[in-house]
Amino acid sequence: MNHQTAAILVIGNEVLSGRTREANAWLAAQKLFDCGCKLSEIAVVPDQSQAIISTLNRLRHTYDAVITSGGIGPTHDDITMECIADAFGVGLIEHNFIVQAMTEFYGKEGLNDGRRRMTRVPDGARLIRCAQTIAPGAHIGNVYILAGVPDIFASQLDAILHDFGDMPFHRQEIEVELAESRFAAGLAAIQLQFNDVEIGSYPGRCGPKPCGKICLSSQHPDRLQLALKLVSDMLASL
Amino acid sequence: MNHQTAAILVIGNEVLSGRTREANAWLAAQKLFDCGCKLSEIAVVPDQSQAIISTLNRLRHTYDAVITSGGIGPTHDDITMECIADAFGVGLIEHNFIVQAMTEFYGKEGLNDGRRRMTRVPDGARLIRCAQTIAPGAHIGNVYILAGVPDIFASQLDAILHDFGDMPFHRQEIEVELAESRFAAGLAAIQLQFNDVEIGSYPGRCGPKPCGKICLSSQHPDRLQLALKLVSDMLASL
Repeated sequence: MNHQTAAILVIGNEVLSGRTREANAWLAAQKLFDCGCKLSEIAVVPDQSQAIISTLNRLRHTYDAVITSGGIGPTHDDITMECIADAFGVGLIEHNFIVQAMTEFYGKEGLNDGRRRMTRVPDGARLIRCAQTIAPGAHIGNVYILAGVPDIFASQLDAILHDFGDMPFHRQEIEVELAESRFAAGLAAIQLQFNDVEIGSYPGRCGPKPCGKICLSSQHPDRLQLALKLVSDMLASL
Repeated sequence: MNHQTAAILVIGNEVLSGRTREANAWLAAQKLFDCGCKLSEIAVVPDQSQAIISTLNRLRHTYDAVITSGGIGPTHDDITMECIADAFGVGLIEHNFIVQAMTEFYGKEGLNDGRRRMTRVPDGARLIRCAQTIAPGAHIGNVYILAGVPDIFASQLDAILHDFGDMPFHRQEIEVELAESRFAAGLAAIQLQFNDVEIGSYPGRCGPKPCGKICLSSQHPDRLQLALKLVSDMLASL
């Protein structure tokens, strides 16, 4: 059985300082939904080993799997691989396959200290390879270690999604030009009838008028359609 | 002294399911940087009381302050106020000021059950008012409870920022058309000389060429300029 629940751990000062708008968790959230794996938590932490290790350990013991994003490059602020090795209590090793691939690509003299850093993975990890880069991600236990650069993250994510979810989630939305308080009681009553359909209400405004959306999602298309009909009928009755 | 560290707790299935791209933590990250408050963690959790309460308690005991986003509307999936009351071990009360304001705005008959839900705050909380909405956020202990709708969140955030930070952070960036591994060692050596300047490297690509950015930030403009000069000189020497 594939992973049914997951967390995403984003590692990077650039997100916490407001420099960079987070994009990888946003992509992974959409892909996991389509796979049928419930994304249960997103955590963003700085490039600090204590924060990375304690958060990683909490998440990997709470959810079926953890996907990390960022901190696997060659510079001093890239400390994800060593932190995850520490979290698992294993060493950090230069992986023969990566050393060989990098030597072929850059030549023996091109394998400088920075690139050498990128050959290191937690002992026992398997590699996550993709077409976008010669430096792979890694997979150890229930943790998938991916790059932070968005196009590399996306490519590595595609390479691991077969481990996630079995029954895809489906989503239906209804636009509604009523204040939420008008239909809140009716919606709550319908939600109580469905423990297999998640119903959310997301208000918005079009000028002075309210115009929100009611969003229903489920792994069971028949139940989704039934709940959708009840919500539509309830709204029409108001 | 104002809050020096903060966490943001985003509450909402819509972010975890990939329906909605997170926007409020991204805005708050930028504003807190400008205020000089270090955003140390972002957590996104679902609309489930256990997840909200345990995460809120962890964050409020770890950082100077916590800003929450979402879950304070009138529908069944809006459970933030009751969860935060539970986390603090206090009751949830109908706040006289909100009841009165809503009664004036909607009329006595307009104060239906949904709107009545929005008059409730944790006992002892102060209100966070803004021009965007009649339903306020709330402030209890070191926790600031804000709405999830982005324009309301932004307006409520502006109303509380005076509690955050004392010395603004500053940022400088250098564009660099070299592979990170070329300057990784030099950059690490400079970082070692500055515990008051944070140096990050963010690779990118322009077609086949590398073209990343080195980003420096600090609360001390003089130190920032000094580090910037050392990095520029180091890059020029390559």
